[in-house]
Amino acid sequence: MELLEEVVFPLLGGGSPWGAEDATLLDFPSGKLALTTDSFVVQPLFFPGGDIGKLAVCGTVNDLAMRGAKPLFLTLGLILEEGLPLETLRRVLRSAANWAREAGVQIVAGDTKVVGRGQADGLYINTAGVGVVKEGLQVGISRAEPGDLLVINGYLGDHEVAVLSCRDGLELKVQVSSDCAPLSSLVETMLSAGRVHAMRDPTRGGLASVLTEMAVASAVALEIWEERVPVREEVRAACEVLGLDPFLMANEGKVVAAVHPDDADRILMAMRSHSLGGESAIIGEVREGRPGEVVLVTSLGSRRLLRMPSGEQFPRIC
Amino acid sequence: MELLEEVVFPLLGGGSPWGAEDATLLDFPSGKLALTTDSFVVQPLFFPGGDIGKLAVCGTVNDLAMRGAKPLFLTLGLILEEGLPLETLRRVLRSAANWAREAGVQIVAGDTKVVGRGQADGLYINTAGVGVVKEGLQVGISRAEPGDLLVINGYLGDHEVAVLSCRDGLELKVQVSSDCAPLSSLVETMLSAGRVHAMRDPTRGGLASVLTEMAVASAVALEIWEERVPVREEVRAACEVLGLDPFLMANEGKVVAAVHPDDADRILMAMRSHSLGGESAIIGEVREGRPGEVVLVTSLGSRRLLRMPSGEQFPRIC
Repeated sequence: MELLEEVVFPLLGGGSPWGAEDATLLDFPSGKLALTTDSFVVQPLFFPGGDIGKLAVCGTVNDLAMRGAKPLFLTLGLILEEGLPLETLRRVLRSAANWAREAGVQIVAGDTKVVGRGQADGLYINTAGVGVVKEGLQVGISRAEPGDLLVINGYLGDHEVAVLSCRDGLELKVQVSSDCAPLSSLVETMLSAGRVHAMRDPTRGGLASVLTEMAVASAVALEIWEERVPVREEVRAACEVLGLDPFLMANEGKVVAAVHPDDADRILMAMRSHSLGGESAIIGEVREGRPGEVVLVTSLGSRRLLRMPSGEQFPRIC
Repeated sequence: MELLEEVVFPLLGGGSPWGAEDATLLDFPSGKLALTTDSFVVQPLFFPGGDIGKLAVCGTVNDLAMRGAKPLFLTLGLILEEGLPLETLRRVLRSAANWAREAGVQIVAGDTKVVGRGQADGLYINTAGVGVVKEGLQVGISRAEPGDLLVINGYLGDHEVAVLSCRDGLELKVQVSSDCAPLSSLVETMLSAGRVHAMRDPTRGGLASVLTEMAVASAVALEIWEERVPVREEVRAACEVLGLDPFLMANEGKVVAAVHPDDADRILMAMRSHSLGGESAIIGEVREGRPGEVVLVTSLGSRRLLRMPSGEQFPRIC
């Protein structure tokens, strides 16, 4: 209790936002309610471009945004290891509060549990998110249609390379920041600019995973044009050193969307004018064809099936 | 991903309730939205009368019920230690699914993360809950009024003694089961029977903590009649052996409520006719007086201030 009142609450905006009552009561606007949850166990807790607090807020905000929901409320569950420096907790909470403000969401309920030394590796965070979807708006992973174009808002793989670059034993001499960011405002811009059918954020499992999930759920084939997919030189180089594939690398501030072809240019322009979409690109197309198949057209013009993650990814990148 | 589809989903009612999409869309009835979250780190994972899965569902359902909310939806975030036997996970999920059904809530969103050996002590669960409060219903910790009577639905301390009885090194030869249970149906019964002003479930910190919180939040004094407070002989004996106070022991299926004195008998009768309220009792009264003060009138007629937990409680009881 003291932890909540003396450390947590002041950093989340003062007062006692979720102190006295067991549940928080909220007005809810009309529309569908969107609900999601995610746990965060990233190691290290701080990495170039982010930290576990920022990640916990952005990850859940982004999951809501992918359904076309406006994120409204977050809950925050903290599992803290005994002996965690209070200053570490403070930094993480300050970051979570800042990014919640930035994303326009309120952290309205929370909880802390303390476990013994060696039982939580610093701290773990669970966030659940509540958002609202405007009546009539239908965006979903199963709604991609043949003819749709696929757009992405920038470089692949920055998050995973940034986290790996801090790991002991990995000889990565790269300066890459995580792309971790709340995508809700970018998504709002996209929805205003034209018809978005399906959206996903390529986190764990990377672009290859979400494209495959989209192809399966929508019963379509996807064609991806390799040379159009934005990947930084540093990320490409790091992937080569580690034997990794940028298409499988985790991102925390990217959205890939299947959009109506007539609106694709307008959506692309809107994305490029947004601070999180300067490097946006059209990277492929939805096709009729074998449902669930994702074909990569390489820079040399050859065609191959996009490789799926084999479960051999580095752990604890989010 | 395989973990979700092959292990988690089948046990939570089949299909892929939260598989393909990042967030789940739900119809929400009119009224206030209630939101809460809790993490569960209980050790051992299985104890007499419950397990971490049942606890995670009941704990969050109960937090919603304490605001007068009807629990509707839960999210489930699992942090799993590498090497956790799959059968353990299955037992926990089966239990969570059963108790969600029992409590009338749907588990609609979830997530799994795996951390290395020695980094999660088996598994941790975070649940967040969404409920709805009927327009006009006002129940809250700050609404206790002088004259109100205090009711509880049965024996104190069963949960904490049940968990402690499984711990190595504690020589407790008692057979007590945890009282872990979803309180939503009992609370509905109480709300139908009369005017309930304030409710809390005395979990971590016990009855003493929630009474103090109620007295402070409502700016009233409380008088508790010790001999009316139901405590099992086995629990009283175990507390004596361990030097613990039943008023500070955690419960997971108890509610203490401040109710209008004219309705107290009717509410008490309704509680006693409910399967979770057979031993319900009126244990005290709300008084004007020093705000925040909780006075215990002992069996011998003496009066003393109720002792608050000193932070020396056994850890990981929920």
